[in-house]
Amino acid sequence: MFGIIATWRMALEGITEADQMLRDGANCQDALETAVRAVEDFEYYKSVGYGGLPNEEMQVELDAAWMDGDTLSIGAVAAIKDYANPVSIARKLSLEPVNNMLVGEGAEKYAHKNGFERKNMLTERAKIHYHNRMKEVKELELKPYSGHDTVGMVDLDMDGSMAAATSTSGLFMKRAGRVGDSPISGSGFYVDSEVGGATATGLGEDLFKGCLSYEIVRLMKEGLTPQEACEKAVGDFDEVLKKRRGKAGDLSLIAMNNKGEWGCATNIEGFSFVVATENLKPTVFLVKFDENGKQYFEEASDEWMENYMKTRTAPLVRK
Amino acid sequence: MFGIIATWRMALEGITEADQMLRDGANCQDALETAVRAVEDFEYYKSVGYGGLPNEEMQVELDAAWMDGDTLSIGAVAAIKDYANPVSIARKLSLEPVNNMLVGEGAEKYAHKNGFERKNMLTERAKIHYHNRMKEVKELELKPYSGHDTVGMVDLDMDGSMAAATSTSGLFMKRAGRVGDSPISGSGFYVDSEVGGATATGLGEDLFKGCLSYEIVRLMKEGLTPQEACEKAVGDFDEVLKKRRGKAGDLSLIAMNNKGEWGCATNIEGFSFVVATENLKPTVFLVKFDENGKQYFEEASDEWMENYMKTRTAPLVRK
Repeated sequence: MFGIIATWRMALEGITEADQMLRDGANCQDALETAVRAVEDFEYYKSVGYGGLPNEEMQVELDAAWMDGDTLSIGAVAAIKDYANPVSIARKLSLEPVNNMLVGEGAEKYAHKNGFERKNMLTERAKIHYHNRMKEVKELELKPYSGHDTVGMVDLDMDGSMAAATSTSGLFMKRAGRVGDSPISGSGFYVDSEVGGATATGLGEDLFKGCLSYEIVRLMKEGLTPQEACEKAVGDFDEVLKKRRGKAGDLSLIAMNNKGEWGCATNIEGFSFVVATENLKPTVFLVKFDENGKQYFEEASDEWMENYMKTRTAPLVRK
Repeated sequence: MFGIIATWRMALEGITEADQMLRDGANCQDALETAVRAVEDFEYYKSVGYGGLPNEEMQVELDAAWMDGDTLSIGAVAAIKDYANPVSIARKLSLEPVNNMLVGEGAEKYAHKNGFERKNMLTERAKIHYHNRMKEVKELELKPYSGHDTVGMVDLDMDGSMAAATSTSGLFMKRAGRVGDSPISGSGFYVDSEVGGATATGLGEDLFKGCLSYEIVRLMKEGLTPQEACEKAVGDFDEVLKKRRGKAGDLSLIAMNNKGEWGCATNIEGFSFVVATENLKPTVFLVKFDENGKQYFEEASDEWMENYMKTRTAPLVRK
């Protein structure tokens, strides 16, 4: 068995490449890096890598993480600027004996010394989004923050090894130096090849209050299916947040175990995810809720898929 | 009931102050901040705050975190330079609606705008340690890294509220921008007033592979005493690391539940911790192992205490 699962529709192109690699016998780490880099490189995805939305100072600061499910080795970068593929830097950091998580200028120095590609990650399109939002915030007194669509993936290769990774530009209009859950072990990601893995997207500041990725892996270790584990962890913590804080931020988690079984749970409308396994071609699922609030999945229609790409690439006018 | 527990002997002076505050009815957050600041301010403790040992570029970069056990609000800074009390910045960040974790220059900007005290945290004594270590590394081809004595504390007030905090200068000779477990939710710290809290010290890069603070709180929620929870989490994860990686880094955890019961477990020789509760005056305990490798605690003797302060404050000669 092999498989890969990822947050959001935007992972589809990368997952399709990774699926073929895993089918051809690639190891989970190479397939995973290829898949995440595809999302980082595509400029129309405005929450990851190139084209990611900037912070309040109009600088694109990126977070990414890497975890090897065999050794539990972790690498992570946070608030790194002007490097093309944060996930590859995180993977490289996971191989260091110590100093596995680097932030800001220190992360940039490491990337420079190790020959990673420099790239100004701020696109013209992202600048228009920034200016339009600044105008809206001024005119409508909106809260500046919105958008936090982290790509997170877990995969399994034919040898039974697993890996997980995340990559994000974080909250749009975040403060300089802000770090969410994505590079935080146990919150943004966790994987153990003897069990399975999980990754998160949503409001980082709430996700890291609950260590939900670790909790899902732990529940799978206790015998729950990935679907049961995701639903229990997200459902329970959504309740905890509402009880303690009056409200819960967006929490969306995906998981896969070491048999290639997978699951997803969310507390928001409009979440999508992508899965491919030995028995399932790369497929985009939309999460829906029935009248009792029970979650179910629906394969994305051709119309939905067309509309998705059309809205992502639509011309953008500066207001 | 009230109580406070902390990693390492160095917490004693702060704990003594906090104990009196809690006895007088202070809330757990004010007592905790006072206790951690005392450690940050004391220049002879070379792994926290002023006098903390620098990174490979001879800059003191500090990490700190704050968690409110009632609301689960978290604040954290990492790789922040030249501010006197990182724990107070972390506490302030825990009150923000988002942007709760800030790193590097972004954290410094926030601290500046919010009026926190600027201070060059690099002492003459730390410079001598740095130069001597550089010489040793060159002459003896030693690995540069050593020392990672984070102060981490959990406390409980008479109203039943709990809080946790950490503060550290991290690994001596770390890379610029390196972040360990201390500001990482679930790894360096976790607290829930309905259960209890835990904090960690040791090799951050191994601690964040296991989310041990979260795991200890979870085990206490399942009904284990703080002592049972610490021993189980540390023992199990020490085994996992040895099995998967051939070795385990230093892991030392302390915990307290919301009844004021406390516990500690470590996989190293020479760990000390400090506890005070309604029924126990501030006391330094040393962790020892019997011939079967079973851990037990011994109150620090007067001789040990005198020797501790003598070695910490002994004149230091540049080699």
